[in-house]
Amino acid sequence: QEQNPPRVVNTWFEKIQLRGYAQLRYNGLFETNPDLKCDQCDKSWGGDNGGFFFRRIRLIFYGQIHPQVYFYIQPDFASGGGNFAQIRDAYFDLAFDKKQEFRVRIGQSKVPFGFENLQSSSNRLPLDRNDGLNSAVPNERETGLFFYYAPQKIRERFRFLTSSGLKGSGDYGMFGLGIYNGQGPNQQDKNRNVHVVSRFTYPFEFSSGQILEASFQGYVGNYIVTRNNPASTDQVEFKDFRYGPTVVLYPQPFGLQAEFNWGKGPEYDPELDDVLESPLQGGYILANYRILKGKDVIIPFTRYHYYKGGKKFEIDATRHRVKELEVGFEWQPHRNFELVCMYTFSDRTAENSLNPSNRQKGSLLRLQAQVNF
Amino acid sequence: QEQNPPRVVNTWFEKIQLRGYAQLRYNGLFETNPDLKCDQCDKSWGGDNGGFFFRRIRLIFYGQIHPQVYFYIQPDFASGGGNFAQIRDAYFDLAFDKKQEFRVRIGQSKVPFGFENLQSSSNRLPLDRNDGLNSAVPNERETGLFFYYAPQKIRERFRFLTSSGLKGSGDYGMFGLGIYNGQGPNQQDKNRNVHVVSRFTYPFEFSSGQILEASFQGYVGNYIVTRNNPASTDQVEFKDFRYGPTVVLYPQPFGLQAEFNWGKGPEYDPELDDVLESPLQGGYILANYRILKGKDVIIPFTRYHYYKGGKKFEIDATRHRVKELEVGFEWQPHRNFELVCMYTFSDRTAENSLNPSNRQKGSLLRLQAQVNF
Amino acid sequence: QEQNPPRVVNTWFEKIQLRGYAQLRYNGLFETNPDLKCDQCDKSWGGDNGGFFFRRIRLIFYGQIHPQVYFYIQPDFASGGGNFAQIRDAYFDLAFDKKQEFRVRIGQSKVPFGFENLQSSSNRLPLDRNDGLNSAVPNERETGLFFYYAPQKIRERFRFLTSSGLKGSGDYGMFGLGIYNGQGPNQQDKNRNVHVVSRFTYPFEFSSGQILEASFQGYVGNYIVTRNNPASTDQVEFKDFRYGPTVVLYPQPFGLQAEFNWGKGPEYDPELDDVLESPLQGGYILANYRILKGKDVIIPFTRYHYYKGGKKFEIDATRHRVKELEVGFEWQPHRNFELVCMYTFSDRTAENSLNPSNRQKGSLLRLQAQVNF
Repeated sequence: QEQNPPRVVNTWFEKIQLRGYAQLRYNGLFETNPDLKCDQCDKSWGGDNGGFFFRRIRLIFYGQIHPQVYFYIQPDFASGGGNFAQIRDAYFDLAFDKKQEFRVRIGQSKVPFGFENLQSSSNRLPLDRNDGLNSAVPNERETGLFFYYAPQKIRERFRFLTSSGLKGSGDYGMFGLGIYNGQGPNQQDKNRNVHVVSRFTYPFEFSSGQILEASFQGYVGNYIVTRNNPASTDQVEFKDFRYGPTVVLYPQPFGLQAEFNWGKGPEYDPELDDVLESPLQGGYILANYRILKGKDVIIPFTRYHYYKGGKKFEIDATRHRVKELEVGFEWQPHRNFELVCMYTFSDRTAENSLNPSNRQKGSLLRLQAQVNF
Repeated sequence: QEQNPPRVVNTWFEKIQLRGYAQLRYNGLFETNPDLKCDQCDKSWGGDNGGFFFRRIRLIFYGQIHPQVYFYIQPDFASGGGNFAQIRDAYFDLAFDKKQEFRVRIGQSKVPFGFENLQSSSNRLPLDRNDGLNSAVPNERETGLFFYYAPQKIRERFRFLTSSGLKGSGDYGMFGLGIYNGQGPNQQDKNRNVHVVSRFTYPFEFSSGQILEASFQGYVGNYIVTRNNPASTDQVEFKDFRYGPTVVLYPQPFGLQAEFNWGKGPEYDPELDDVLESPLQGGYILANYRILKGKDVIIPFTRYHYYKGGKKFEIDATRHRVKELEVGFEWQPHRNFELVCMYTFSDRTAENSLNPSNRQKGSLLRLQAQVNF
Repeated sequence: QEQNPPRVVNTWFEKIQLRGYAQLRYNGLFETNPDLKCDQCDKSWGGDNGGFFFRRIRLIFYGQIHPQVYFYIQPDFASGGGNFAQIRDAYFDLAFDKKQEFRVRIGQSKVPFGFENLQSSSNRLPLDRNDGLNSAVPNERETGLFFYYAPQKIRERFRFLTSSGLKGSGDYGMFGLGIYNGQGPNQQDKNRNVHVVSRFTYPFEFSSGQILEASFQGYVGNYIVTRNNPASTDQVEFKDFRYGPTVVLYPQPFGLQAEFNWGKGPEYDPELDDVLESPLQGGYILANYRILKGKDVIIPFTRYHYYKGGKKFEIDATRHRVKELEVGFEWQPHRNFELVCMYTFSDRTAENSLNPSNRQKGSLLRLQAQVNF
């Protein structure tokens, strides 16, 4: 409890480090349709819920506490509907070798399925992740065991891709293989059945210095759906699998990024008023251009994304049809501050037994101020 | 995510700092009326809920992370009814100039309306804020944008007023102007309408060294009231404005402090069983005397405060009539520990549709131990 | 608020320190009876709730901020059913003398009743505390005032017992006396009545270096039981007292540990369908052997524990009959990582008005990975 022994020679503040970031948004300008919402993206869209809104307030406690043990604990202080503190990541990496090329990650962490899912929200250009791949893993995270391998040279390349401002994903291995609960983070599992995920990625570096990363990933498991007014005979457990490729041309200065996935999972059918196992697909393409002007970085970007399938973690595995085009820019006057301004044109269908006919179209301007500390 | 680049040359613990304080209370002695309560002040008053009680457990992460960027994140760990961690402040100051005379504060922070509202609870003499001005801004805080201006000399004076132990408010500018959601902190806005606040203050320093601060402040907006059993025809949105002066004679050694505000806002009417837009007014006067005895500081004080109006953030904008006299003292044996002992004589009316006739009188002794770290 | 003065000459990171630990579990292997559960121990036992599960994610902020003031704030980030941050400890020690032999502890902290209750979960060998003594103080903690006395020599011995890896309890004094709310931590008291606890312990050191600690402890108070469907005539306040001895032979290398307690408290009676004041008793015996192999520490252990009585903090003061045998080992490759593997054979009865006949027997394998940072 109290007055435990000093566990090492060096001081606590050399072993444990702290950093963080916060994102404040304003989504209320030029909104054409108050019924256009996206629960998974940002709960302050649409309705009367406009106003200034913290999307994320993150503190990250981390450190290499032992030559072969790394820890990472990241609570979010903008959670629970009232800015409560809730865990996002809580994991520790145990390396098998001194160079840390082989590691197992234990705890709650990002599931290696999709580049945009793995990339930190503090680095992503569009304000929210694409529905197509983000619907695979709610909040991108799960609790389980994840094995990662990358040779030292590739680890350094992953590091460069974030440290240089090229907005890489961080190091989730050249090869990853994991098992996890499968019902989402911060809750107990609901079946005796793990999900299995695997991913292979390679960041090619050309003689020009240009880097191109290509990946392929897939997962499989069973998911328990929460149904509105369930009868005891209603099916709640469904097959849940997906696979697909990623290509990222890093913005040196022109960047291009595309991902897609196919699979099967639960989806509400408005005609039968039932949840069925259905095919799903979705993805996006993003283009961006990185302009350096003195100390300033300005990155105009555009993304088109698309999803056709159910969202398993919503009630009745809500049926979604999403087409969205975004055009905007990010401005970084220095490392500690970023401003994103983005126009969204959206066509979203979200249907379940509570709302069996709900297609909404519209557009709005979205603003975000981010501080990195 | 992980292994982000080192963002600056200096170490994290020179850029980010941590401090905090905690307040433990015991309100159960010599209580004459268990039905005398004050929800806004301290939920451990009255009823059977006596006992030891943490009013605040605060950790403050802050730092000047860039010559022109300051961040401040303060969760409270005594929130949510069960000592959960919830954000109080989360803001960043962007300065326009190197001297930081012109700043905009972005995020959730104190609304510049009233000296006692702005003063930290760790510095206030009475255990709770006065109902008169604190009912203007629940929890004193809102999310929005706040512009502050103060010349360097005045900024130093504000700094001196806290560092010297004179219990100043901190630096919220000589002039402040802000826009904010208006429905209270840690929740989404409920209308598409910002509140606007402004304040002017000046700390006069006389040749004797005595400092006198005079302020004037006001705000205006629309507020959505939560009604018990609302009919669809019931009005929920009400005008909400207030204005008033502050005078603070700092305790060198005798101090005097007075604030008042007038305005209009929603208020429950027990006769009509309805919520009406009604005039409101309230304020207080506080006297104190700062005794230095060796290393000890002892500050006897007395405050009389008064409020007549609705509390917009309570159900049905509960009708309040408050008259309260407090007599007590604060004892600081050193910077890290404080003890407050205070006798309260109270006459409180709090009426809404659930409890349309409720006037309570009584007295009690209140104790608080505070640790600053 | 902001820009408060530097309170001391030394830097914040020399005064405030941070450490922590996290425990990830998997209870799903070789489970013979899914209806065998233990709510108080670990909510991921039994049912369909298998899977990877964080039992604790702790960050501890602490420090000697003044020669006579120590503070300790420990939130848990695996609380509230969804990995929210909630306070476990929040206390400050005020020492009366420079040697800190006489101290009063103010705030929420462990109640000095039972060695295993006081020992940190990061040090305990079995995954959960024994029902017999842990049912005395839910979550082991309460808010109140606790006086502790230990002479300097004994304080050093307590320190050695944790720093050496012998898994001591930490320093709760040679003599302790406390008053506290009595309804459990992180909530308000429900009666105007404190609990009183006292404990005497002495760690004998033999000339061989072998240490044997013997203690006796007891508490008394009144407890308010939460009843299912209470009639207004139902009794809710019950007498609540316990007392009993502890003996710990520290593992140098063979260790033996035994505790027992007797007392009275509320307990559900399935025949009368009522809650009665009833006698209770329970305890355990634990044997372990500490093997040092190079840098590795391996500790095989076995524990038998037993409880017969009500659990006052469960609905209707649920009637419990517990017999449990555990066999396992802890492996520490280094200070930063521990693995526990433990087989549990259990026979548990847990009956209240919602479930008046519920005896479950079975066995399961339990695994835990712990990281200390």
